[in-house]
Amino acid sequence: MITGKNIIGFADVAEGTDVLRAYNPVSNTALPETFTIATAAEVNLAVDKATAAFQVYRLSSPEERAVFLETIAAEILGLGDVLLERAVAESGLPLGRITGERMRTVSQLKLFASVLREGSWVEAVIDPAQPDRTPLPRADIRKMLVPLGPVLVFPASNFPLAFSTAGGDTASALAAGNPVIVKAHESHPGTNELVALAIQKAAKQCGMPDGVFSSLSGTGPAIGQQLVKHHGIKAIGFTGSFKVGTAIFDAVTQRPEPIPVYAEMSSINPVLLLPAKLAAAADSVAKQYAQSITLGAGQFCTNPGLLIALADEATTQFATTLQQELSAIPAITMLNPGICYHYYENREQLSRRKGVETLYAGGAEREATKGSPALYRVSAQHFISNTELQQEVFGPTSLLVVCNNEAELQAVIAQLHGQLTGTIMAEDADLTRFSGAITALSEKVGRIILNNVPTGVEVCYAMQHGGPFPATTDIRSTSVGASAIVRFARPLCYQDWPAHLLPAALKDENPLGIWRRIDGQLTKDAVRK
Amino acid sequence: MITGKNIIGFADVAEGTDVLRAYNPVSNTALPETFTIATAAEVNLAVDKATAAFQVYRLSSPEERAVFLETIAAEILGLGDVLLERAVAESGLPLGRITGERMRTVSQLKLFASVLREGSWVEAVIDPAQPDRTPLPRADIRKMLVPLGPVLVFPASNFPLAFSTAGGDTASALAAGNPVIVKAHESHPGTNELVALAIQKAAKQCGMPDGVFSSLSGTGPAIGQQLVKHHGIKAIGFTGSFKVGTAIFDAVTQRPEPIPVYAEMSSINPVLLLPAKLAAAADSVAKQYAQSITLGAGQFCTNPGLLIALADEATTQFATTLQQELSAIPAITMLNPGICYHYYENREQLSRRKGVETLYAGGAEREATKGSPALYRVSAQHFISNTELQQEVFGPTSLLVVCNNEAELQAVIAQLHGQLTGTIMAEDADLTRFSGAITALSEKVGRIILNNVPTGVEVCYAMQHGGPFPATTDIRSTSVGASAIVRFARPLCYQDWPAHLLPAALKDENPLGIWRRIDGQLTKDAVRK
Repeated sequence: MITGKNIIGFADVAEGTDVLRAYNPVSNTALPETFTIATAAEVNLAVDKATAAFQVYRLSSPEERAVFLETIAAEILGLGDVLLERAVAESGLPLGRITGERMRTVSQLKLFASVLREGSWVEAVIDPAQPDRTPLPRADIRKMLVPLGPVLVFPASNFPLAFSTAGGDTASALAAGNPVIVKAHESHPGTNELVALAIQKAAKQCGMPDGVFSSLSGTGPAIGQQLVKHHGIKAIGFTGSFKVGTAIFDAVTQRPEPIPVYAEMSSINPVLLLPAKLAAAADSVAKQYAQSITLGAGQFCTNPGLLIALADEATTQFATTLQQELSAIPAITMLNPGICYHYYENREQLSRRKGVETLYAGGAEREATKGSPALYRVSAQHFISNTELQQEVFGPTSLLVVCNNEAELQAVIAQLHGQLTGTIMAEDADLTRFSGAITALSEKVGRIILNNVPTGVEVCYAMQHGGPFPATTDIRSTSVGASAIVRFARPLCYQDWPAHLLPAALKDENPLGIWRRIDGQLTKDAVRK
Repeated sequence: MITGKNIIGFADVAEGTDVLRAYNPVSNTALPETFTIATAAEVNLAVDKATAAFQVYRLSSPEERAVFLETIAAEILGLGDVLLERAVAESGLPLGRITGERMRTVSQLKLFASVLREGSWVEAVIDPAQPDRTPLPRADIRKMLVPLGPVLVFPASNFPLAFSTAGGDTASALAAGNPVIVKAHESHPGTNELVALAIQKAAKQCGMPDGVFSSLSGTGPAIGQQLVKHHGIKAIGFTGSFKVGTAIFDAVTQRPEPIPVYAEMSSINPVLLLPAKLAAAADSVAKQYAQSITLGAGQFCTNPGLLIALADEATTQFATTLQQELSAIPAITMLNPGICYHYYENREQLSRRKGVETLYAGGAEREATKGSPALYRVSAQHFISNTELQQEVFGPTSLLVVCNNEAELQAVIAQLHGQLTGTIMAEDADLTRFSGAITALSEKVGRIILNNVPTGVEVCYAMQHGGPFPATTDIRSTSVGASAIVRFARPLCYQDWPAHLLPAALKDENPLGIWRRIDGQLTKDAVRK
């Protein structure tokens, strides 16, 4: 049962008078339930509760937090079809995709549970005392990562489960020991409520403090900005558009106290189509990319929006086949009318820019909230002279940049903005011949891929889902994979601290059995006295 | 021989017409040599050279960079007495202190050389391909830290060697594979030139690229701001005042592309003097702190500027002894007339704030550029109601906050700004009774110390020299110790990358013999095929 209330710790609150409703992009109708927008007082209450909860939650053991995350996963699964149906209704995504995304959400929670049990993510470092050192004795110095405090999470529209209420940001922030406040995404408030209640239930069941998790409904400019500027918020995770991401980032610069902002925003994920590869496999690469460009109506942060190739016959062949393939792919439902509207606006704007040629553009099915594929072509010269051609068109559109020679190709890469991914489609001969271009591209991206598509982000230890600006606001971080946990922690150093007061991770006997760096060497041994 | 030129890669350049000179605070005279301020064109040249050098330097092996750092250390030692004498003349610091600081500078360079040889700082993570996984195969995914690009370093006034031209920021940035541009500190331009030339010589000797290191003279508002805003600069290290640090931080927010800024700024390093400890040892603690407060004329970032105690007889006794001890310590030369001027201005401003009582204030020896000790007292109530009492007085001054009860003591701690260090002076009984206050203080600091003084920062693996704002602009970082290296790196992920093109740290056979995380487990093993 959807209540439409804000979930503030263990309380469900709805004192406000303004409401919002979800929209079903398939039926093109508003859904019946109303969601009460949080009042300014409710926003403050959520932060106050999170601040108080932090004092308790930060002291929870890794095992307790692991069980909490697993319980959240179980509660989400326990919602059964109700959750799946609601997420489908609010996103227009097919049931199969949502079912897969639920599995991913659950897997992420379990991944962080295993990261907690393995335990070495805290980067425990111990330099034992050297009382006899000359000329001065050395104190006993130990440090480890500790949580930051209440974390604000802005979920993404395009992953109503895996990048949302209990998504990667929430899971990693909770894992690190921080309370979380979610500013519910306006596109899927019902999905949000169901998951938020699952988290609330898990928190109670696991004896977690009131306020370890809250979820607030409202708009970004109101609730979002109030939260961003609140002194109780100690870090922010965001996934969404460049416009909103930079608005959050800019608002943070107005705070007296700067805090980490992990905004994952805008990426067109360039693909370097090298000549030997295209000569050998223009058609199959084109078919592969037609699928990648249109997957999920192109609504992935890693969607390949830019294809870069040399002007030759194979590239012409590639373009022809890609165009044919895309024209055979029907328009599919996009996440919401706003995204659909902007998709067609941005794609038309792109098509009108100087030197841009439309190779294919499916009909604009705005009323049906469906996105049709499109492919555009531009010369390297035009691309280089107009950085607006790099503006992301969120949806199933790609721009092919044709370079007359290697120098132009180098110049195109030199001009690129920061990206989540870069892909090289290459034969061995290409790798040698274009090694400079490949190196240059790797400097622009967080993840460099050989002979595959960038869509599909594996949730694993080695994943890097981040990159230079404007892909993210923090080049040092990943929002997917095990390393995401360190975003919400900071080192704290204990000097000459008494054994009984040291955190378990830093005690001599290593009761957690974790990897630690002692006198510069990684070991699971106890500290020798 | 001092030339007064800017060191731009392998060229010594002085096209400008404006000059600056160093000042000897002991003799109170300007030193004869002039240093030519870099022109805007020279600033751009330095960044262009650094950008070009990055393409080569980033590919250098850990061993090559280790040898480079060791060669810099040897060249610095090779400067002999010329360097020591110049640093003494430009800082007013005693020869013994400068000699010790030179050793620390050399040790830091060697520490990063050993970090490079141990090699695991790159955080290599490997998730090998799982071609047979269902429903979808897993790609081969590997990541490691790679350098960011040209790093801008603003040296500190108070460590003309160890936090300066070849100090911790430069050493860690070079170690991570980044070219460095130093904006020479105006207080010690001669020391800077000598060290810059040593680095230049080492770079040539080690076959490093032209532009791997540059040093530019000029003022912060001109040269500094031009550098901060230059798109070629990819990270900034700064040590200095809150005013200059936040000016740099604010300027960075004006850049189109945000970059990491590690500004270590303002900290008054609170000391919690707990009652059982003072009852047992008021006099010896007072004597210990008199030394710590006045060490190096109080010109340390970890100088204890705030003492917090309960109102009782032992605290009165402590204050009396501290006052006596301080009155027996003569004024000593400060780093430069500007610091000395601000010291007395700030101390007098503090003394005039509401509720502040002067317990001791040595004579203001402004003309002699000498800083005399001072001790002030204020009630918790006044302290809590006026955050201006937390403004750093850089020099040998401390403020004693007297709390009527534990609740006031808690409120004082709750009110504290972020700090580099916090110290607890306590007996076992205090630790139990004040556990809440101790926890609260630990949340405000980067390093928490038991029964010692905060001055003296060990250069080791476990050191954390950082903390919540305004102590630094990035709570996640340390500017001292081995971990400082990761500030200047970012993760890069390679997906399905061919073995022969993978960096050595990520190759199957682990040719560097480093610790890596394979399928989530730390190991030095090769990847099993």
